[in-house]
Amino acid sequence: MGDPAGISPELMAKALCLDDLRQAARLVVFGDRRVLAAGAAVAGVSPEIAVVADPAEAPADESRPVFVDLGHLDPATIRLGEVSREGGAFAVANFRAALRYAAAGHAQAVAFTPFNKAAMRLAHPSYEDEITFLTEELGANGPASEFNILEGLWNARVTSHVPLRDVARLITREAVVNGLVLADGAMREAGFARPRIAVAGLNPHAGDGGNFGREEIDVIAPAVEEAKARGIAADGPFPSDTVFLRARAGAFDAVLTMYHDQGQIAMKLMGFDRGVTMLGGFAIPVLTPAHGTAYDIAGKGIANIGATRAAFELAAKIARKRLKEAQG
Amino acid sequence: MGDPAGISPELMAKALCLDDLRQAARLVVFGDRRVLAAGAAVAGVSPEIAVVADPAEAPADESRPVFVDLGHLDPATIRLGEVSREGGAFAVANFRAALRYAAAGHAQAVAFTPFNKAAMRLAHPSYEDEITFLTEELGANGPASEFNILEGLWNARVTSHVPLRDVARLITREAVVNGLVLADGAMREAGFARPRIAVAGLNPHAGDGGNFGREEIDVIAPAVEEAKARGIAADGPFPSDTVFLRARAGAFDAVLTMYHDQGQIAMKLMGFDRGVTMLGGFAIPVLTPAHGTAYDIAGKGIANIGATRAAFELAAKIARKRLKEAQG
Repeated sequence: MGDPAGISPELMAKALCLDDLRQAARLVVFGDRRVLAAGAAVAGVSPEIAVVADPAEAPADESRPVFVDLGHLDPATIRLGEVSREGGAFAVANFRAALRYAAAGHAQAVAFTPFNKAAMRLAHPSYEDEITFLTEELGANGPASEFNILEGLWNARVTSHVPLRDVARLITREAVVNGLVLADGAMREAGFARPRIAVAGLNPHAGDGGNFGREEIDVIAPAVEEAKARGIAADGPFPSDTVFLRARAGAFDAVLTMYHDQGQIAMKLMGFDRGVTMLGGFAIPVLTPAHGTAYDIAGKGIANIGATRAAFELAAKIARKRLKEAQG
Repeated sequence: MGDPAGISPELMAKALCLDDLRQAARLVVFGDRRVLAAGAAVAGVSPEIAVVADPAEAPADESRPVFVDLGHLDPATIRLGEVSREGGAFAVANFRAALRYAAAGHAQAVAFTPFNKAAMRLAHPSYEDEITFLTEELGANGPASEFNILEGLWNARVTSHVPLRDVARLITREAVVNGLVLADGAMREAGFARPRIAVAGLNPHAGDGGNFGREEIDVIAPAVEEAKARGIAADGPFPSDTVFLRARAGAFDAVLTMYHDQGQIAMKLMGFDRGVTMLGGFAIPVLTPAHGTAYDIAGKGIANIGATRAAFELAAKIARKRLKEAQG
């Protein structure tokens, strides 16, 4: 369960009532049953769950979602629509419990309803973003990355939360190849047999043959060739102002962008609020809806379940695949 | 008339048949009557025009569009869909003639059907882009800029065809203020009483309070304040991955972006192919449809007149306003 002051409790209650999701995976939810009950009341639903204090208590043949009641937050102490340390502590505790449960081999993927980063920082000052927290909790196994997914179209990026001034020097052949390897791996986990990944250029018109920058020629094109030699269906570099039009039309399954806004401008205009964010490159795949906590509509019962459903279903799909592979 | 090997002749023939356009302005077209006839045949239309060798020949009360036949290109020598020096020379000659006609005070705006830059460079090697050619022909009166316009939403940019590596150092307070002054001026010419201009940040999340870059704090915000003090309805800086969503929803009339792809990614995804490009900051406003010569559909009679119509109608609107002010 994510932040308790926004739409997350409502979304979790709604998600637990989705028949297809309940059938797609064995769901184990970490939170507080009182917060879930408040969310269920807002949503106007009554999810059938098996409440336990410790996930080990749940019988193996339990067909209902298992709800692990950590008993750590009374929703009466939370004001809807407000950032609080208590709300942040609740989300951090749930996230950590889920990650540790999965890291111990009991789950194959982790998903969460939206967090409020400001609240999490109040409770856990080193909480910079999900990538840093996952690195802290799970350790780093090489490069990690955030993927944005909208209706089957993936966006991965080589650089993210860095000043634009620093982007060009961070675009190295190794960084681009790493981005392609990560995206290819995550997409294969998500069920793509051989994902077709378009690589965006860095410069206007992808450098226009070197007239507006040489990174495409000196760095990105060689990286694409190296990735191809490693069996990745990479192509490019392409001008970034048309590559998403082509991807949207079906020419590619993913676009690897060189910097944050190059992908985010496109994905948000295409409706990424309805999309899914996946954190890849860790021992456990982590998924969440792309939108935020929506404090402005908290408690109104009008939160749209679409993105959460897409995130949870993709988590279930990946988890099934991983479980099958683990079982040989 | 623009490039003869693509859809430009067809578009010009169609445009000359638009009643509302014929009524909105006195049209003077520079080209070759044989190329226009070929375009009219493709379009299946018969524009009524007054053909002259010199625009001074046309009587003042001529109600039809005046077609200045420069007699410089036999369309039989042009292969549709192919770049040629002859095609480029035709477009350069027409553009130059129209600019000189306007610069002499006989017209208040210039518009053209699409050019092929490669062809123009064959005929005129210094033809880098429209901005450089206009500077060559009209002289520079301070900073000039390209504006992209889609259904009432304008996009102007502070930097354009430069490597991304160089963008941050080109984002100076003066450059941002100049961009705002230019955009404000061009939009007032186009009929906005007080255009509302959103300014994009440079960095991810507009720098996130200085965490991902300081240009928003040190450069862009002070520039916005300076522009406001000069009576411009500027606002920002805003994160570039959501500012176009807000503009599209009606919160702003324009977005000033810091670099080429920041605006182009958004505008192209929103359908800028249907939009208009305006070159501003010169003595003569110059307008053209945003799309290109479409060599792949040349001669088929299926070219969509929408963007050309929008470009020509905006040129007529601006010209009427300028003429009124000149006479006022």
